[in-house]
Amino acid sequence: MTAADEFEPPELTWRDVTPAAARRMLIAAAAAFAGRGYHATTTRDIAARAGMSPAAVYIHYRSKEELLFQISRIGHAISLEVLTSVDGPDPVARLAAAVSAFASWHAEHHTTARVVQYELSALTPPHLAEVVELRRQIEAAVRGMIEDGVAAGVFDVPDVRGATLAVLSLCIDVARWYRPGGRRTPAEIGSLYADLVLRMLGN
Amino acid sequence: MTAADEFEPPELTWRDVTPAAARRMLIAAAAAFAGRGYHATTTRDIAARAGMSPAAVYIHYRSKEELLFQISRIGHAISLEVLTSVDGPDPVARLAAAVSAFASWHAEHHTTARVVQYELSALTPPHLAEVVELRRQIEAAVRGMIEDGVAAGVFDVPDVRGATLAVLSLCIDVARWYRPGGRRTPAEIGSLYADLVLRMLGN
Repeated sequence: MTAADEFEPPELTWRDVTPAAARRMLIAAAAAFAGRGYHATTTRDIAARAGMSPAAVYIHYRSKEELLFQISRIGHAISLEVLTSVDGPDPVARLAAAVSAFASWHAEHHTTARVVQYELSALTPPHLAEVVELRRQIEAAVRGMIEDGVAAGVFDVPDVRGATLAVLSLCIDVARWYRPGGRRTPAEIGSLYADLVLRMLGN
Repeated sequence: MTAADEFEPPELTWRDVTPAAARRMLIAAAAAFAGRGYHATTTRDIAARAGMSPAAVYIHYRSKEELLFQISRIGHAISLEVLTSVDGPDPVARLAAAVSAFASWHAEHHTTARVVQYELSALTPPHLAEVVELRRQIEAAVRGMIEDGVAAGVFDVPDVRGATLAVLSLCIDVARWYRPGGRRTPAEIGSLYADLVLRMLGN
């Protein structure tokens, strides 16, 4: 178990993965990949961490890559949900809330987020294509919120695509530098970043 | 050889590493670590990539970790140099130039930068301490430039430490998402980021 578990039990992140044995393996795989990297981790390592036999892994997943794909797919889908579940008529408040939620999510789930972001090149082409489609939706969600603010005259952004890239990058990179017990809590990082992003967008 | 070499021959990045055989091994190690991760790479892999015998590695480096440490130490030292080689009396121009140079460096050297950023936990405690000291100096350099601008009344920054963190994070994360041949060149990323950072700092 990693420090990420301080904030949210992994059972909650992966709650839609059933049966429980498959969920346990996904949690074990995410921790193992985060610890030593995808290529240095064997299905045997994952099984041992999950307290199961190596053969049991193959009942639920075709391969180690399938485990990585599920972690990546679910991780991206949840972070898209985090971004888009923010609603309201005011573009400024909506973007601030979305950035805050997205940045804190990357602090709270830094272990999963690192695996998801750093091991993309290990996915098979069809799996990568599915993840790339989720990434496109994440990009479109942020770009849409920025465009709404520009249209409403509350943001001043000469390069919307460039600003979108920077906003996403800023939030995602929280997973790299965040340390539990550090100077700022995930919620404090969220509110710092919401403020910095609004300034960046000329609000 | 990786795509990073499009911009600058690795011989130039590692030009102070002598003799040439030691330099060749460092370049091979950086490419191997970037490709499959530190833990999945053996000194045998590195030797094969460098076109040398496994035993030859140990003439120049005590261990695989020593190779990682040298990549990390030199990578951090060069990026500190990139940040601090910018001079001039105007705090706005100086910070813009530093951000631009630092962000483009992370695009041009994305392969090395990824290894340097993602494999910190594989360093021994004394090696990590040396790298952490370089990271402290990088942080202090950026913070100093922001403080100069605040003192001169050209930046408006409620949380200098938080803004420093965000500026560094934004530039470093370029190494993660940057792809050679993508929409923006390293120089274009540098100028986009300089502009976004100045806005973030209330200039």
